[in-house]
Amino acid sequence: MSVEKRFQGRVEIVRFESAVLRGNPAGDPHERRIPVYLPPSYDREPARRYPLLLALAGFTGRGRMLLNDNPWSPSLDDRCDALIAAGAPEMIVVMPDCLTRFGGSQYLDSTATGRYETHLIEELVPWADGTFRTLAAREHRGIAGKSSGGFGALRLGMRHPDVFGALACHSGDMLFEYCYRVDFPKACAVLQAAGGVRRFLDAFEARPQKSKDDFLTLNIVGMAACYSPDPAAELGVGLPFDLATGLPRDDVFARWLAFDPLRLLPAHAEALRSLRLLYLDCGTQDEFHLHHGARAFTAELTRLGIAHRYEEYADGHMNVSYRYDQSLPALARALAG
Amino acid sequence: MSVEKRFQGRVEIVRFESAVLRGNPAGDPHERRIPVYLPPSYDREPARRYPLLLALAGFTGRGRMLLNDNPWSPSLDDRCDALIAAGAPEMIVVMPDCLTRFGGSQYLDSTATGRYETHLIEELVPWADGTFRTLAAREHRGIAGKSSGGFGALRLGMRHPDVFGALACHSGDMLFEYCYRVDFPKACAVLQAAGGVRRFLDAFEARPQKSKDDFLTLNIVGMAACYSPDPAAELGVGLPFDLATGLPRDDVFARWLAFDPLRLLPAHAEALRSLRLLYLDCGTQDEFHLHHGARAFTAELTRLGIAHRYEEYADGHMNVSYRYDQSLPALARALAG
Amino acid sequence: MSVEKRFQGRVEIVRFESAVLRGNPAGDPHERRIPVYLPPSYDREPARRYPLLLALAGFTGRGRMLLNDNPWSPSLDDRCDALIAAGAPEMIVVMPDCLTRFGGSQYLDSTATGRYETHLIEELVPWADGTFRTLAAREHRGIAGKSSGGFGALRLGMRHPDVFGALACHSGDMLFEYCYRVDFPKACAVLQAAGGVRRFLDAFEARPQKSKDDFLTLNIVGMAACYSPDPAAELGVGLPFDLATGLPRDDVFARWLAFDPLRLLPAHAEALRSLRLLYLDCGTQDEFHLHHGARAFTAELTRLGIAHRYEEYADGHMNVSYRYDQSLPALARALAG
Amino acid sequence: MSVEKRFQGRVEIVRFESAVLRGNPAGDPHERRIPVYLPPSYDREPARRYPLLLALAGFTGRGRMLLNDNPWSPSLDDRCDALIAAGAPEMIVVMPDCLTRFGGSQYLDSTATGRYETHLIEELVPWADGTFRTLAAREHRGIAGKSSGGFGALRLGMRHPDVFGALACHSGDMLFEYCYRVDFPKACAVLQAAGGVRRFLDAFEARPQKSKDDFLTLNIVGMAACYSPDPAAELGVGLPFDLATGLPRDDVFARWLAFDPLRLLPAHAEALRSLRLLYLDCGTQDEFHLHHGARAFTAELTRLGIAHRYEEYADGHMNVSYRYDQSLPALARALAG
Repeated sequence: MSVEKRFQGRVEIVRFESAVLRGNPAGDPHERRIPVYLPPSYDREPARRYPLLLALAGFTGRGRMLLNDNPWSPSLDDRCDALIAAGAPEMIVVMPDCLTRFGGSQYLDSTATGRYETHLIEELVPWADGTFRTLAAREHRGIAGKSSGGFGALRLGMRHPDVFGALACHSGDMLFEYCYRVDFPKACAVLQAAGGVRRFLDAFEARPQKSKDDFLTLNIVGMAACYSPDPAAELGVGLPFDLATGLPRDDVFARWLAFDPLRLLPAHAEALRSLRLLYLDCGTQDEFHLHHGARAFTAELTRLGIAHRYEEYADGHMNVSYRYDQSLPALARALAG
Repeated sequence: MSVEKRFQGRVEIVRFESAVLRGNPAGDPHERRIPVYLPPSYDREPARRYPLLLALAGFTGRGRMLLNDNPWSPSLDDRCDALIAAGAPEMIVVMPDCLTRFGGSQYLDSTATGRYETHLIEELVPWADGTFRTLAAREHRGIAGKSSGGFGALRLGMRHPDVFGALACHSGDMLFEYCYRVDFPKACAVLQAAGGVRRFLDAFEARPQKSKDDFLTLNIVGMAACYSPDPAAELGVGLPFDLATGLPRDDVFARWLAFDPLRLLPAHAEALRSLRLLYLDCGTQDEFHLHHGARAFTAELTRLGIAHRYEEYADGHMNVSYRYDQSLPALARALAG
Repeated sequence: MSVEKRFQGRVEIVRFESAVLRGNPAGDPHERRIPVYLPPSYDREPARRYPLLLALAGFTGRGRMLLNDNPWSPSLDDRCDALIAAGAPEMIVVMPDCLTRFGGSQYLDSTATGRYETHLIEELVPWADGTFRTLAAREHRGIAGKSSGGFGALRLGMRHPDVFGALACHSGDMLFEYCYRVDFPKACAVLQAAGGVRRFLDAFEARPQKSKDDFLTLNIVGMAACYSPDPAAELGVGLPFDLATGLPRDDVFARWLAFDPLRLLPAHAEALRSLRLLYLDCGTQDEFHLHHGARAFTAELTRLGIAHRYEEYADGHMNVSYRYDQSLPALARALAG
Repeated sequence: MSVEKRFQGRVEIVRFESAVLRGNPAGDPHERRIPVYLPPSYDREPARRYPLLLALAGFTGRGRMLLNDNPWSPSLDDRCDALIAAGAPEMIVVMPDCLTRFGGSQYLDSTATGRYETHLIEELVPWADGTFRTLAAREHRGIAGKSSGGFGALRLGMRHPDVFGALACHSGDMLFEYCYRVDFPKACAVLQAAGGVRRFLDAFEARPQKSKDDFLTLNIVGMAACYSPDPAAELGVGLPFDLATGLPRDDVFARWLAFDPLRLLPAHAEALRSLRLLYLDCGTQDEFHLHHGARAFTAELTRLGIAHRYEEYADGHMNVSYRYDQSLPALARALAG
């Protein structure tokens, strides 16, 4: 994806000190390195203002990871350059870092991890508007992501229609009975063997090589930290199973379900209806079974007469950043208008 | 496992015509080939009577499969010979065939598969007592099995204390939220792609090579045929998810849970208490997470003061018939007493 | 595969005492249980004589394993019944047991395992002719097998045209550079970790659960016991790599190659040309890459103008006994003629 | 791995126009983006000069990939910062881009890929010395890498003792019979199915999701492009098997073996002896079996009395960049001296 120089944007990696995240309960840094993509004309046209996109990384990810190099899958900045060269409108793209010790934050406020939703909405967006030449209005502001980033984009788009005017959700977490609950028995067994959440995390961080079961377990611990934080529990994480008996805890899982986009939809139909673009897609072989959720979510959108664009494609959950080639131009056009 | 001639039992494979299974709804044969192991002294001592053990095969299995040859894992008859040579009391072992088109029957009566519990209790046990020189009393009659066979042994032992005086349950199905429900999203996707239960089964039977997903799906279809039969549904099988929307159906799964040994236990405590031997074991890496269930079940037995023997070992769910070397001598001693 | 009674053959499992195998170097039993399939009319027509087929099991197998029960893949006797019911000529099928402690014998004479080729040709065939009503002539005698059994059938058919008039080789071992050599580095590492051949075998036999690497290593040790026995080496097994340095030993592998059917072909072209049926097949996704060998072998047959039947099908190496439905009727017809 | 500001180096990503690579036969770009790590004191101490390290990426990699972000495995620049903060001497690190369409160049000159050895030795090292404040002498110049990068470091270190005074080879390609040849049958089958090298590569590049077999095959094609280029063959790549017959071509593989570090060693013993540091390591579960090669290589070093440091650790081939924490400080000390 070679691009002529006049179509090359540039990336600034900003060291951002967050007041919101200072002293967060997980002990994660409050200074974050946040990449900002400035489009090709940004330096040439100093009076011009641009739409702003927040691009959210998936679980175990952060903004910088969207820039990772791969010979056959362009980094997000290279991808933006190529799409703009091909005719897409220009955008500024901010790539937040909401990673936590637990593998992620789901871009929400939790007593176990920190106030990441507040950080994004009340701190990062105003900062971006104040620092870069954005078009500082919801019509020109979008949010997008994949997996946990897709969940974040969808949920924040629903909850903050005053902030975002368009969103794209790639393979986003939903239908939690399918995407998370299936991993409870294994995660429970791993945590029992490790001796609890704290010991698991300590050992996980110390192991140079992480296993498949490690990541499966971190995922469940991370979701528990976000969806069912419990100040009385170890590290503040309320688990959806009883570590002593191994039995599932439906009362805890009910707290998770309250965050499921499928269940959030009815209360946020008007917000979704107000979007300039509501884009969803999912692979039909998603290993987390997210296509079931995507179908149910978009079927409900259709039933409610909410305009949206939904695409399925023959692939799984991993290494599908090529799907941004579908969503980014559509977002750019919707936000430019 | 070479055994001297005087320690060699023999196997008769009986063609059994079942009146109970005639015209069963799944269209499976009512004539079955049922192996019967007659112990070493059976022909030499024509007046002697022996305890009777029913040995139940797992899902996709039937009695004859317990005789399958493997150079490093003796068939059940060779195993019996060796254990008797090592001092275990002699038993007659009947190996029922309760296989169905759906992969199994869970050894229960269902409108989708047939009356397999009735077949075993009212037909096969009396026939064995009438045909072979058994000690025809519950004190001398046992039931054992692995996986679905372990489920069958445990459930039938609980429900028919007048028939069975001892049981062994190896890696038996229980804690259905863990052992079955985790496979619903994948099974649902496979059935959707196949075009429903009938088309899936037809294609499954026609395919010379079966895949991992094939067996995962057959397992869920089979359990649905046993636990939630529904005359109004395709092939009489009520699925625990909606094939049209892909969403889980908790109402159907509630019918499954009514068969979970963990939930059956409280109502059958006295039956379990009355057993001469209640043996359970499970591998600590069981791929169906059955060790969680086994621990919860035996913890409840302990709480209720019900005598039992429980063992864990470092292995998974498959190829663990070597565990019969633990249960069979214990059963033989309990039933001989 | 239900079959009417008049189409049902029967199986005798004979305890055969082998003079040839007595005192074999591997310490394996010289008494073997050998299944013999007698066709439906055998008891009804006491004067009638039948062709004889030797059916050879694959590595880690023996004759009895061909009778193993599987709900969706008939045992060899059930398969014979069904094929005869569908019109195939009747045959007697003898299923030898040439298993060794090393997992197999490749049906050849070796100083490490024993004289299995001699056992088959000079002992078992004459015994079958003397015991059952066979048509005792090469025109009416065939040999067939899969994997190592296919290798055995092909090699013995080449070497003993006076004994066999037809053969079928399913997924037979050949092109040893591809089917064996690729596993040398892993087998070497496993043997190094185990502390040599003897300790590996002892530990292998003691382990209730065998791993994938266990079987990979047993396969290489077994082939070394057959193709490169070495009285000076541990257990008489000359390994194709140096256990001390880990480096490959081409001089040893050259001994293996001398047994490769591809290399045997030129010297045995006339024997192959004399066959009434020379059947080969292989799956196009064979995990041991045997389709490469099958193609090379049959290309050479074609070049030499040697009549044969070769089929490929879309499957791997395991669980392909359904292919006997192709070879058995063809063999039966060729041997009946 | 948080580091105080005074211990933070910085990375420049230089767009380097290579005269050597211009018009390369594979059609790859001759302009490359090459990251250069400048250590913490570089800007503060403008008269100071530093050792230079070339860090070579593995197959399918290029310099920028060494900077990829991962929450639990620091990028190479973060790793350098942390090691320097912990007391290691400072170095300049140049991260070449020698990627080709074939997945790599093995850092050597080939008529199929281009002159990558020449590019590194005659172009990139002089440019680095001319552009940055290096200590421009072999005593202060090192080369390191992992996998194909380890091969490159070891081979170039052997061949250019005038250029490099120290090297580190992590899990480097060697003992080609084990690390490459085992994949020939599968690669051959994939290429046959694809219709040759060109069609395979075209389809590979077009597929958004690459499979395990894709990468296995690309690896063999890439090595063939480097070790056995053949102007008469498709895309100039001489394959070590015959695509028509599927048979191995030992004559071609002999050309590969001429590049095997194990076979290069005897002729380059003096160069290796002259190094200030010769570091090798390998995981004991390397999926490419490279520990066999590493042991043989270092055993020969020991036999020849060549000083070296060799470490084994319990891990496989992937995600082992944490091993740079061992080699980099040792290299820095050796080159600083």
